[in-house]
Amino acid sequence: MVSFESDYIQGAHPEILKKLSETNMETQTGYGYDRFSISAKEKIKKACGCEAAEVYFLMGGTQTNMIVIDTMLKSYEGVIAADTGHVSLHEAGAIEYSGHKVITVSQHAGKIDIGALRQYLGDFFSDSNFEHMSIPGMVYISHPTEYGTLYTLSELKELSEICREYSMPLYLDGARLSSALMSKSTDVTLRDIAALCDVFYIGGTKCGALCGEAAVFTKNNMPERFLTLVKQRGALAAKGRLLGVQFDTLFTDDLYFRLGKNAIDKAERMKKIFDEAGCEYYIRTDTNQQFIVLSNEEMEKLGKRAVFSFWEKLDDNHSVVRFATSWATTDDDLDELERIMING
Amino acid sequence: MVSFESDYIQGAHPEILKKLSETNMETQTGYGYDRFSISAKEKIKKACGCEAAEVYFLMGGTQTNMIVIDTMLKSYEGVIAADTGHVSLHEAGAIEYSGHKVITVSQHAGKIDIGALRQYLGDFFSDSNFEHMSIPGMVYISHPTEYGTLYTLSELKELSEICREYSMPLYLDGARLSSALMSKSTDVTLRDIAALCDVFYIGGTKCGALCGEAAVFTKNNMPERFLTLVKQRGALAAKGRLLGVQFDTLFTDDLYFRLGKNAIDKAERMKKIFDEAGCEYYIRTDTNQQFIVLSNEEMEKLGKRAVFSFWEKLDDNHSVVRFATSWATTDDDLDELERIMING
Amino acid sequence: MVSFESDYIQGAHPEILKKLSETNMETQTGYGYDRFSISAKEKIKKACGCEAAEVYFLMGGTQTNMIVIDTMLKSYEGVIAADTGHVSLHEAGAIEYSGHKVITVSQHAGKIDIGALRQYLGDFFSDSNFEHMSIPGMVYISHPTEYGTLYTLSELKELSEICREYSMPLYLDGARLSSALMSKSTDVTLRDIAALCDVFYIGGTKCGALCGEAAVFTKNNMPERFLTLVKQRGALAAKGRLLGVQFDTLFTDDLYFRLGKNAIDKAERMKKIFDEAGCEYYIRTDTNQQFIVLSNEEMEKLGKRAVFSFWEKLDDNHSVVRFATSWATTDDDLDELERIMING
Amino acid sequence: MVSFESDYIQGAHPEILKKLSETNMETQTGYGYDRFSISAKEKIKKACGCEAAEVYFLMGGTQTNMIVIDTMLKSYEGVIAADTGHVSLHEAGAIEYSGHKVITVSQHAGKIDIGALRQYLGDFFSDSNFEHMSIPGMVYISHPTEYGTLYTLSELKELSEICREYSMPLYLDGARLSSALMSKSTDVTLRDIAALCDVFYIGGTKCGALCGEAAVFTKNNMPERFLTLVKQRGALAAKGRLLGVQFDTLFTDDLYFRLGKNAIDKAERMKKIFDEAGCEYYIRTDTNQQFIVLSNEEMEKLGKRAVFSFWEKLDDNHSVVRFATSWATTDDDLDELERIMING
Repeated sequence: MVSFESDYIQGAHPEILKKLSETNMETQTGYGYDRFSISAKEKIKKACGCEAAEVYFLMGGTQTNMIVIDTMLKSYEGVIAADTGHVSLHEAGAIEYSGHKVITVSQHAGKIDIGALRQYLGDFFSDSNFEHMSIPGMVYISHPTEYGTLYTLSELKELSEICREYSMPLYLDGARLSSALMSKSTDVTLRDIAALCDVFYIGGTKCGALCGEAAVFTKNNMPERFLTLVKQRGALAAKGRLLGVQFDTLFTDDLYFRLGKNAIDKAERMKKIFDEAGCEYYIRTDTNQQFIVLSNEEMEKLGKRAVFSFWEKLDDNHSVVRFATSWATTDDDLDELERIMING
Repeated sequence: MVSFESDYIQGAHPEILKKLSETNMETQTGYGYDRFSISAKEKIKKACGCEAAEVYFLMGGTQTNMIVIDTMLKSYEGVIAADTGHVSLHEAGAIEYSGHKVITVSQHAGKIDIGALRQYLGDFFSDSNFEHMSIPGMVYISHPTEYGTLYTLSELKELSEICREYSMPLYLDGARLSSALMSKSTDVTLRDIAALCDVFYIGGTKCGALCGEAAVFTKNNMPERFLTLVKQRGALAAKGRLLGVQFDTLFTDDLYFRLGKNAIDKAERMKKIFDEAGCEYYIRTDTNQQFIVLSNEEMEKLGKRAVFSFWEKLDDNHSVVRFATSWATTDDDLDELERIMING
Repeated sequence: MVSFESDYIQGAHPEILKKLSETNMETQTGYGYDRFSISAKEKIKKACGCEAAEVYFLMGGTQTNMIVIDTMLKSYEGVIAADTGHVSLHEAGAIEYSGHKVITVSQHAGKIDIGALRQYLGDFFSDSNFEHMSIPGMVYISHPTEYGTLYTLSELKELSEICREYSMPLYLDGARLSSALMSKSTDVTLRDIAALCDVFYIGGTKCGALCGEAAVFTKNNMPERFLTLVKQRGALAAKGRLLGVQFDTLFTDDLYFRLGKNAIDKAERMKKIFDEAGCEYYIRTDTNQQFIVLSNEEMEKLGKRAVFSFWEKLDDNHSVVRFATSWATTDDDLDELERIMING
Repeated sequence: MVSFESDYIQGAHPEILKKLSETNMETQTGYGYDRFSISAKEKIKKACGCEAAEVYFLMGGTQTNMIVIDTMLKSYEGVIAADTGHVSLHEAGAIEYSGHKVITVSQHAGKIDIGALRQYLGDFFSDSNFEHMSIPGMVYISHPTEYGTLYTLSELKELSEICREYSMPLYLDGARLSSALMSKSTDVTLRDIAALCDVFYIGGTKCGALCGEAAVFTKNNMPERFLTLVKQRGALAAKGRLLGVQFDTLFTDDLYFRLGKNAIDKAERMKKIFDEAGCEYYIRTDTNQQFIVLSNEEMEKLGKRAVFSFWEKLDDNHSVVRFATSWATTDDDLDELERIMING
């Protein structure tokens, strides 16, 4: 049965497995000091156009969010996020486990409402009682967002300016960054992100790796003794080479971007199929996730021939479901979707 | 200058100071095992009509909320509160510091919207992804709420039923409980609270004590090794007698209720003054806090003759301010307010 | 029955209760901004000979240790203490609850072995694997120690130098500081402590107050947003005046020192009684706690006529017990002890 | 240069990489619900002779220790470990970060002194003040220990009995379990461990996998909502198949045991080389790690031709160094070591 359940339902891009095999028996020291990690960091810094950046590889997305947020915030600070943000809802309280409040502001299609953010910050610091509250210390966004939408360059600049004004870091969660960067409608490049964000992460797990995310600190601001902080949070990989080899491969010959391009190309074709089938969109995005509305009957019928994700109930008779493409989606997969949706 | 800034701007009711003096040189053991604490607990259990209750004295409100919530929740659980709830906004992230998310639902005049609560819980546990989220494990309410409003007995019963249905405790923050109990419009008694809530606290600090709150566990559900948990959180008083004597006094000859009655009586007269002065209310309550709207000019002028609390900006020209009465408010104070507001 | 159980078995010195009564109905704002707290801080700074000091009042000893240590350490740091230190053993894991390791070094009669401390620090930072360990970030001592012993000025200077060398704060827990300062054998003054330590606290609870400790930051090093950090940890007193009035009284007319003197004078007489009775000492101190060895039979017999604290089992037939004097111990108490021990 | 630096200096056993490649494009759901994880769990349960066991795959050793300990302990509990235990010293304070004290008892060659453990527990619970201390709630051992030593079956039984007596779980850290199980001198089997321990983990990272450890709960005692607890701690792998495939391979055709056997066989030959070279042992073990004493000159000279780990300074002129074999060590490596050590 063809599956569009998510972008992490296969293993890794074959090129990554090949490199893991080729380098497998080479003796390398642990904990991220291996030559692959060193090389991968250099390639990422180059791709970001930011030689001063510090790069650190971690195992997964929740872990990266938790560690970046906890180690960059002061104890009394909270992180601002859209109320639909991943850290607000879908990380099992990991940010709070590390002691920090997630302060939510309203959003549109998953993107922080910039006006609401300005209002919140203005009100907060003019409130004479603010020292009795969790103090905002960072802005968290994801790009693409939980709903697959993208910030424009102009929005990103505005968010960056607000963060400058309030002296707080702007943090971008790039779990699906390869799709964001290769979207046909985006005007945001990796270099823009590196220039405008204080810290962000380049997602591996959902972009073709077996596991791994690359946290990038762009302003000479990686927390001191970061290895110790990472180990203290149970996140230090003994065989750091596993992460090093993967990111070294992803950032060789533009593989990371090529994998994003496949996800986007397949999503574009998927949208055409949905259009032709007359589907109602909940959110139609320019990235690799599409959210459509199905009646209960349609959902049941479709569920027999294709795998997709239930997103949320819309009313008693309708639900939102998500279809995701990835580096691994093939034209065969879409031919099958076409047969199901159109020839039905 | 007359002050209605809050209900904790004087020391303690003189009867409490008298008992502290009378018992001062008596030798008693520490950590809450003194005879005053034991006696006070018995009196509170009697007043609650709940002989099985377990009572524990703590120093302050945030501390009590943090400890009750943290020790009654499992690690993966969050606490549900109104988005205007004290634990949501005004406790400096203390709940999150202890590792738990505050899950907010909408409210009306400070009271949890019971329909919204039902909807949230129904949706949550029917979401196939709920294991990736902070799991609701308690409902937190305050009575009076942040806005001085009160739950009706029928609402409290409904909240209690919902908590039964989902097997989670109902927790009532009674920082200003004496006012709630003596309100002229309430149909909720201390016995009702003890019967319907799994845990609640009887506020001392804002109801006439120097410090101290009495946490009451009503269902044989005080967390095991509670003294150790309390000490581990830095909250165990060596001289437990300080709390014991105060609560023993407050629950002798109905002092706690008489102090609440004074706050209410004075608030009723205050409302008459505001009415006569033609004030616009933001929220007009039946407890000891009144919220009125003032123009910037009125606020400045009034501020020269009386102390009150800024609450929030309404628009560029108007603000909400709070006037609070207490056990210590006198008719002289209100005579002065009358002179200012009416004869002004 | 006469009691030497501890130094917190009575209420407060009557002068404190008197001031609480005199100032009781005066209107003052909350959270430590009251005029008594402000005045008390000035008096403490003067007594410390350190005008630049920042003083913050907290409710109890464990709370103060937990907050000072947690807010002054970085997340990856631990605190060094004697393996018999209060924070190592008798605070229910409060330091660990806040996320930090207590790193223990060996001791003599409760005092950190300075040679062992140097050895530990030298070894630690020369270990190539130290980034995999909790990194020492503070030295904690108590004065008097858990065993009532005192550091000499020369030892304190050496500890201070070591801390300078490793750029870590020296923190002194002064739960019983009034006894330390008034000991007949000490050469350490309050000014010495303020000069040599980066932070310390002046104990109130065990030195004549109902509750309260005064944390003193001597090097312009109070953590930023300290009120918020304190509230976040459930430790902010709404009626800060309770602490302010007490410390203002304790630091008026040298009351704090006079109370310490009484404890010391009574302890000196107690030692004479023990000597005359031929008691075996476990530790004979120059402060207000004395540790003697009793056989099981002696312990049982003595326990019928006087209250003291069991300290630890020495062997199957003998135990160490502690007798404490305080500001409240009278000559009548010691007359009774003399009757029991000598005329027995 | 030949390396005996550790057992995680190569990638994974080729059979694991082969399976990762073979299964790579197969569509599987995430978060550990893939068919490989399910199959691997069955095989592990069978190998443990414990059909009721619950198995959960995590990414690394510190992470596994932190999560098992934090989620099995109550908030007020600490974990008992040897003072040389991995969790005591070499995990950057991860246990304390999660809020629990590591309570240390003395050891011999890395193994908990069982007499000292009994003494500690007996004393603890007979101390009338124990509620003011961190309460022991688990015994942690590693097998092999930090020093490569092994518990005997009789010792393991005794530890298990003590834990039964005090109703606390016995937890065994098996980071290098394959070596322990294949040691020529051990009388402890995997089935024994499953029968005597309440929880343990089967190490992958140091036993031939790229990453991954298998936590095994043997007494129907996996903490409820474990997936949520794991995610909350940043440890849930989206592509759970990465762990599933690896453990499925390790527990097919006894690969896990065969890899342990290679490490042991090579260590036995290594000991012969050291013996022949007249090396002084610090600890001579029957597992894959050997600790020898070198003078500074020897260490420098040897360091030019082979990689090993500095362990600790013995005196100004001598150090302890560690040589480790692994699944990947070859006879060629040992031929080279022989040349270096003997033929010089």
